[in-house]
Amino acid sequence: VIDPTDRGFALGDGLFETVLAERGDLRSLIAHLDRMTAGCAVIGLPPPDRREAEATMRAALAAAGLARTRAAVRLTLTAGGGGRGLDRPEPLEPFLVATAAPAPKPQAPARLIVSAVRRNDRSPTSRLKTLAYLDNVLARREARAAGADEALMLDTAGRLACAAAANLFWLKDGRLFTPALDCGVLPGIMRARVLAAARAQKIEVAEVAEGPEILASAEQIFLTNSLIGLRRAVQAGDEAVENHRLVDSLERAVESD
Amino acid sequence: VIDPTDRGFALGDGLFETVLAERGDLRSLIAHLDRMTAGCAVIGLPPPDRREAEATMRAALAAAGLARTRAAVRLTLTAGGGGRGLDRPEPLEPFLVATAAPAPKPQAPARLIVSAVRRNDRSPTSRLKTLAYLDNVLARREARAAGADEALMLDTAGRLACAAAANLFWLKDGRLFTPALDCGVLPGIMRARVLAAARAQKIEVAEVAEGPEILASAEQIFLTNSLIGLRRAVQAGDEAVENHRLVDSLERAVESD
Repeated sequence: VIDPTDRGFALGDGLFETVLAERGDLRSLIAHLDRMTAGCAVIGLPPPDRREAEATMRAALAAAGLARTRAAVRLTLTAGGGGRGLDRPEPLEPFLVATAAPAPKPQAPARLIVSAVRRNDRSPTSRLKTLAYLDNVLARREARAAGADEALMLDTAGRLACAAAANLFWLKDGRLFTPALDCGVLPGIMRARVLAAARAQKIEVAEVAEGPEILASAEQIFLTNSLIGLRRAVQAGDEAVENHRLVDSLERAVESD
Repeated sequence: VIDPTDRGFALGDGLFETVLAERGDLRSLIAHLDRMTAGCAVIGLPPPDRREAEATMRAALAAAGLARTRAAVRLTLTAGGGGRGLDRPEPLEPFLVATAAPAPKPQAPARLIVSAVRRNDRSPTSRLKTLAYLDNVLARREARAAGADEALMLDTAGRLACAAAANLFWLKDGRLFTPALDCGVLPGIMRARVLAAARAQKIEVAEVAEGPEILASAEQIFLTNSLIGLRRAVQAGDEAVENHRLVDSLERAVESD
């Protein structure tokens, strides 16, 4: 239960990580805690104690009865309660909480639209998993209203950034493409794993700044995040393209890590 | 107390209003509830029942023992608890809560810096009071670190938008200027009252799209919001300019409304 003056609730003043738990195994936990620690430095919060963070996550998983299945464990860190207005109180007393929920792996390809809501690449928060995620909620809402599953978001210059809750990749001529981080992109844990797997398989990789029209010529589009792993995608209204063998090969690599 | 799965806490999925209470009088309450209702239409939440909202605010004021003083009453509406991820659960069960805190009126002029964090004018949330306010928190933090009191924020095109928690005005040659709403500006209740007061006093008013350099030639800068009313401001490092008689006149008008 959370204090209504908690700054995470009142102002989105905090960060989160969503970790895949497979039969109690917290996948890429170190990378997730590294990313939260790096985010804390950007927004000026003390990072959580790693042992406490892990214990909090394991307790949430156990309390939800999800320690033997596939689950999403969400760790939330806020600037804590007290005070009023934008200035943080002193001393700061950060608040840490975890929740767990079932996380079935989606099977069908995601149908994508391009959202009218842009990523604010002119704020450091566009590269962080913050509690201020309403733009992403609205982009997803727009996708659902259009009969699609997920929204692609452009940065303020109109360049592809990412999906509302995933990173974006596409393949063309045997090369793998993904938006460059400075296009307002969250540095996804699964994004990094896919890039590493591609390099290990000698697939040429390019991090690019491109508008959405580039996707029309892609041979295969896919999305990544820690929960879905690698999910094939099509632009809503397009015929689904044939599955690309390189996607299978990358998927096998990140799933066997 | 709030559910940790509440979407306001988890994702910033909600709206708030901060209302000035003077000895129990909720100033501009109808305008605040109108704005929240309009915001609900934009983000797709059912608006709160007005009687329930007012009763919730009065209960918070009484519980805090602030019904006979100058206080800030904050009304928060969220998309409620349940679900996981960006998609809202169905049925939606919005959550409404109010808190109250003392709100002394600041006396000294605000010292301003221009923040590096930009307003995302390419999202509808830049014109709403949402729970996703971390960009504003970071802009204010930047101001405090520079020894200033408040941060001016530019839109993504570099035009003046507003302060982290206030609207911006300036006077020059007897005319009143403020950033136009399409520069990622929150339509402040006090902003509207100042504009109305200026027009009633036959002061020429212009809503403009200008870069921050325009402020160097302003005769007087001031900030407005519901809690501070009208607060004189100077750019940090500048000599304080002489008080402008039109500011006094506008301040008297909005305080006597």
